[in-house]
Amino acid sequence: MIVVMKAGVTDEDVQRVVERVTELGLAPHPSKGEFRTIVGAIGERTPEAQQQLEQLPGVDEVMAISQPYKLASREFHEADTILDIKGIRVGGPHVNIIAGPCAIESREILFGVGQAVKDAGASILRGGAFKPRSSPYSFSGMGKEGLELLQEAGVALDMPTITEVVDPRDVPIVYKYADIFQIGACNMQNYNLLLEVGKTDKPVFIKRGLAASITELLMSAEYVLSQGNHRVILCERGIRTFSDEVRFTLDVSAVPVIQERSHLPVFVDPSHAAGKRDLVPALALAGIAAGAQGAIIEVHSCPERALCDGPQAVLPQNFAKLMEQIRQIAEIVGHRVTIWGREDAQPRRAVAGGWTT
Amino acid sequence: MIVVMKAGVTDEDVQRVVERVTELGLAPHPSKGEFRTIVGAIGERTPEAQQQLEQLPGVDEVMAISQPYKLASREFHEADTILDIKGIRVGGPHVNIIAGPCAIESREILFGVGQAVKDAGASILRGGAFKPRSSPYSFSGMGKEGLELLQEAGVALDMPTITEVVDPRDVPIVYKYADIFQIGACNMQNYNLLLEVGKTDKPVFIKRGLAASITELLMSAEYVLSQGNHRVILCERGIRTFSDEVRFTLDVSAVPVIQERSHLPVFVDPSHAAGKRDLVPALALAGIAAGAQGAIIEVHSCPERALCDGPQAVLPQNFAKLMEQIRQIAEIVGHRVTIWGREDAQPRRAVAGGWTT
Amino acid sequence: MIVVMKAGVTDEDVQRVVERVTELGLAPHPSKGEFRTIVGAIGERTPEAQQQLEQLPGVDEVMAISQPYKLASREFHEADTILDIKGIRVGGPHVNIIAGPCAIESREILFGVGQAVKDAGASILRGGAFKPRSSPYSFSGMGKEGLELLQEAGVALDMPTITEVVDPRDVPIVYKYADIFQIGACNMQNYNLLLEVGKTDKPVFIKRGLAASITELLMSAEYVLSQGNHRVILCERGIRTFSDEVRFTLDVSAVPVIQERSHLPVFVDPSHAAGKRDLVPALALAGIAAGAQGAIIEVHSCPERALCDGPQAVLPQNFAKLMEQIRQIAEIVGHRVTIWGREDAQPRRAVAGGWTT
Amino acid sequence: MIVVMKAGVTDEDVQRVVERVTELGLAPHPSKGEFRTIVGAIGERTPEAQQQLEQLPGVDEVMAISQPYKLASREFHEADTILDIKGIRVGGPHVNIIAGPCAIESREILFGVGQAVKDAGASILRGGAFKPRSSPYSFSGMGKEGLELLQEAGVALDMPTITEVVDPRDVPIVYKYADIFQIGACNMQNYNLLLEVGKTDKPVFIKRGLAASITELLMSAEYVLSQGNHRVILCERGIRTFSDEVRFTLDVSAVPVIQERSHLPVFVDPSHAAGKRDLVPALALAGIAAGAQGAIIEVHSCPERALCDGPQAVLPQNFAKLMEQIRQIAEIVGHRVTIWGREDAQPRRAVAGGWTT
Repeated sequence: MIVVMKAGVTDEDVQRVVERVTELGLAPHPSKGEFRTIVGAIGERTPEAQQQLEQLPGVDEVMAISQPYKLASREFHEADTILDIKGIRVGGPHVNIIAGPCAIESREILFGVGQAVKDAGASILRGGAFKPRSSPYSFSGMGKEGLELLQEAGVALDMPTITEVVDPRDVPIVYKYADIFQIGACNMQNYNLLLEVGKTDKPVFIKRGLAASITELLMSAEYVLSQGNHRVILCERGIRTFSDEVRFTLDVSAVPVIQERSHLPVFVDPSHAAGKRDLVPALALAGIAAGAQGAIIEVHSCPERALCDGPQAVLPQNFAKLMEQIRQIAEIVGHRVTIWGREDAQPRRAVAGGWTT
Repeated sequence: MIVVMKAGVTDEDVQRVVERVTELGLAPHPSKGEFRTIVGAIGERTPEAQQQLEQLPGVDEVMAISQPYKLASREFHEADTILDIKGIRVGGPHVNIIAGPCAIESREILFGVGQAVKDAGASILRGGAFKPRSSPYSFSGMGKEGLELLQEAGVALDMPTITEVVDPRDVPIVYKYADIFQIGACNMQNYNLLLEVGKTDKPVFIKRGLAASITELLMSAEYVLSQGNHRVILCERGIRTFSDEVRFTLDVSAVPVIQERSHLPVFVDPSHAAGKRDLVPALALAGIAAGAQGAIIEVHSCPERALCDGPQAVLPQNFAKLMEQIRQIAEIVGHRVTIWGREDAQPRRAVAGGWTT
Repeated sequence: MIVVMKAGVTDEDVQRVVERVTELGLAPHPSKGEFRTIVGAIGERTPEAQQQLEQLPGVDEVMAISQPYKLASREFHEADTILDIKGIRVGGPHVNIIAGPCAIESREILFGVGQAVKDAGASILRGGAFKPRSSPYSFSGMGKEGLELLQEAGVALDMPTITEVVDPRDVPIVYKYADIFQIGACNMQNYNLLLEVGKTDKPVFIKRGLAASITELLMSAEYVLSQGNHRVILCERGIRTFSDEVRFTLDVSAVPVIQERSHLPVFVDPSHAAGKRDLVPALALAGIAAGAQGAIIEVHSCPERALCDGPQAVLPQNFAKLMEQIRQIAEIVGHRVTIWGREDAQPRRAVAGGWTT
Repeated sequence: MIVVMKAGVTDEDVQRVVERVTELGLAPHPSKGEFRTIVGAIGERTPEAQQQLEQLPGVDEVMAISQPYKLASREFHEADTILDIKGIRVGGPHVNIIAGPCAIESREILFGVGQAVKDAGASILRGGAFKPRSSPYSFSGMGKEGLELLQEAGVALDMPTITEVVDPRDVPIVYKYADIFQIGACNMQNYNLLLEVGKTDKPVFIKRGLAASITELLMSAEYVLSQGNHRVILCERGIRTFSDEVRFTLDVSAVPVIQERSHLPVFVDPSHAAGKRDLVPALALAGIAAGAQGAIIEVHSCPERALCDGPQAVLPQNFAKLMEQIRQIAEIVGHRVTIWGREDAQPRRAVAGGWTT
């Protein structure tokens, strides 16, 4: 950390900072400038130490140099993490498309859409059984019955499945039926939920909160990693800005920024960002062109009858066309789309140790 | 709802909308304009109906006229709700100041700060036992032991207490020890948590999420209200904007906007918005001047040693000075600060039925 | 417009609205719903009429149905506008890359960079002579001397040129030396400047303001169009959001949203959005994948000595590699990059009338 | 500045930074930490130097310590600047209310509203003659004729006047007729306009741009100050955020933040922030309670016939009531409202030299 003193401080003020830095177990490096004095504080920083130093008399600002996350950082683990999820590799140069209906509504729709997205090239099946809804009067998912259908569809189609978990109490049941835990944007900072899934050995797909910084997203990953579960995937799904022409503003720059700082795979969610299906292809392609290692896309065979978020669901035939464009763009940026049954891509970076699970 | 058709639609498109509106149990009112045709859909709207209509061919937009919340609205309950919390009236013309340390750290600090804020005029004691922290490596509260201390302090000082609950599994224990459930900004859309506190009979203090619209905040209140718990207090605590000079931008306009739409009491949280103590008085006074029915303010006797959010804690002596200004400004806008033991203010509006608990 | 009345209004309130609608030259269509009464107001809407109706007693809200822009809208001009700028076609399926240094600093750098970007496939040369700088103490451009160099470089390289104009008084001199007027983000709502360039016959490239809605951007285009200059290009250059990991958040969804509403060509500016060169390729490719009809990219041969915005300038060799990826991605989305001297793409849409200049 | 090196840099990288820092005329102070090496660069920083250092190999970040503005800072001028505008003191403990119609529409309305606001206690008369409007089809002000009316009203009522200038070419005519130049939010970064008013000797009232940081606002003030005109007033008028319940989000925290950094007077504009008159009093009082040294409020006798922004105009009778509350709240926070003809407040701080004009 660097403690920047106010203009015109006294020697006592500086001395007090030096002492407190020492007391906090850090090494103080004072340096007098023309306008300001600064005190470097070398060693492991903690949020508490930073806040406490900020309050000493004469202190103007305390700047952090290192990031507050460790296990999620590239410094800790240099090579891309590549997960193996039932034989599918996720991360590194591999691009995986997760597709399916927003909510599980019926066996017929789930199996029909599932077959369609698999045929088009999706490698992972999605479907929500617990739906966080802004209204207590809206359809909130089929619960356990939905999970059973999802598991059945995954087996029948031979696809790994992903579904959202919203309550720490539901972690065991979701663990039983699904292959990947999805943590929705509303729950990105539901820390007890993160701790619970962190204690399991199944992959955790964390969506960025709608007003979360990238550091905060990586701190949420850190919660899971700190419990020993190293199988984390991150997802940019649109942030809330002043612009209300679409539901959320897909922040494509988050993709390269996260990849620079972290070894974890990064996906995009064009469906929730767009809010309407006409915009989904443009956003999906933009995300893949920016280097995303996957996308999660909502597909429905009869969206105008869907019980949840129908307007953003793509029709199966349009999804197939989009998959073809995704496949081509991925190659141009040095990636390769995982086609289930035809998986043969090799990692972009040599994996020097680490958690290639 | 009003279904706005695109320019140049066919009669069949309009007819299809009219039929679906009827099928949804609503009454269709088509109206042909010079440029556009619109179809009014009269009756109870649901999010599903709106989404489904949006997707019909030729439809440009579906505009909602009524709000999605019911029990939280002024239309449902015209008079201000005034809660009775252990004899203290909250809401209407009553202004209550909640104060205390951010986290409960020790008996000494809690009791010391508690006595100081009571002497200065605070009517409710705050203290966190479960702290949601962005880092898994930060102090996350004393848990049950903290709750016991809080209860003890509340009894000793004869003040109602408020503390945050972050996990549905903790609702029973927090219910046992504290008088008011606080739902933090991170959990405003933790719907299962809202449902759990909604099943109790203790007041729920809901903070606005850092990127939540006012409608979304009222929908979170609706979750609690829909379970039969009508004792809800709302709190504006700063939103996340591009402006990074303070931690969050206190949206003072939220106070009159919520009060126009809802009967529930509205508080402000100047401490979390400011992020540093020098700015707390200006924001607290601004909120009270804008008509807030209370404020929640962090006070600490030794903030530079605090384990959590010390930089935003006000010193006891400054808090006393601030209370005096709050008291004066409240009167200028027709309110009255509750001074524990000297409470005698009368409701601003006649309470015509409703839940004056 | 649709005038939505408050709940519980009187018949006189509705009658007053009906009369005022009539007085404003519009046709009133009242319609009584279960909860609310609405009054349709059919005819040409104006901002004044909307504001005046909003204030009548009993009125809750006045919703606009048609957009406030006319000449910029797809309804007015259905086919994509394709400009001819010195033989280069801009808009429709044509993708053009504008490249060059941020500021014109010297003949050597301008000509060197110009040759490099032309060789790599850029079709238009950029370079700033009047630089709006947030500090009065920063380099603000070479002015007239810079314009002369730019013109000379354009002639030597046989490339059209673009440069920013910041003051209505400079329109004649910029007109004399450059081929395209650039209106920067800071000046998107400098209406007198827009009116001045609207009176000329040279193309105007308008960057979206950092907090401008898409409607506001199209209204700025409308200012130019309303003066008779139909040669307008729009540019998404990043918006200001809470996310401070990059300089501005490139809103790629703006590309398809604008294209749906307007016939004007849409470019992206990955350089100003990113603020650092490592991120420029990802954002440029994302924009092209989202369907942008061009990009404006800053290139510098010695950016660490640049007088303005060096950190975001791409090196010539990296620009060449990026151009190759842009070319491939453009084809995947049905577009074609204009390579100067090898231009042969055909418009995507039949141009049914209109201003294919 | 502090140059933070990446983890794992070589000694050559550090040496290169040290050399460039020296070359830039600054003194280098390298310091090796456990994880990172930093190089302090002591001396006068420039934006160019910072950008150039950022690009050197091995550099992670360059942090600025001092602010980029000089003349606007408290460090340069410690005491509050108090302007004398035709005998009215603005700044320091003096609170002045500027009021009048949004646009000048007719002699009758201007004089009528002017008399009403003067009677209620406003000290400065506002009225727009050049109106920047988002639509080219809207009423854009009466121009010179409006300026003549404003001057006449100012003389008749014996009040100083303020009016917006939007074009550098209009500076002489506005100078001739009005007492204070208003720079609107759209033009906060219209640097040539700022330079022109900076060359005059009349006060300049600068509104914060809708997405401008406080540093950017102070840099715009710096443009005026740098030309020798030290009579600058700043105004917070609401920023654009995701929250669309009001037109703009009034950032009351900007008031104490600016006052901490700068000696210039700070006003608030509750009218443009609110967008509707019912919210204007709450926001005006919030601003005054937060310590603002004035407010600019739109008043109209017949707002539902106003040609511009009628919905946000307060009626004269309500303005008088609001003035009374403003007067009381100002006193509680140690300020005093200037009542024209009864001005007797004294400066809060001793003015130790400086520009008390």
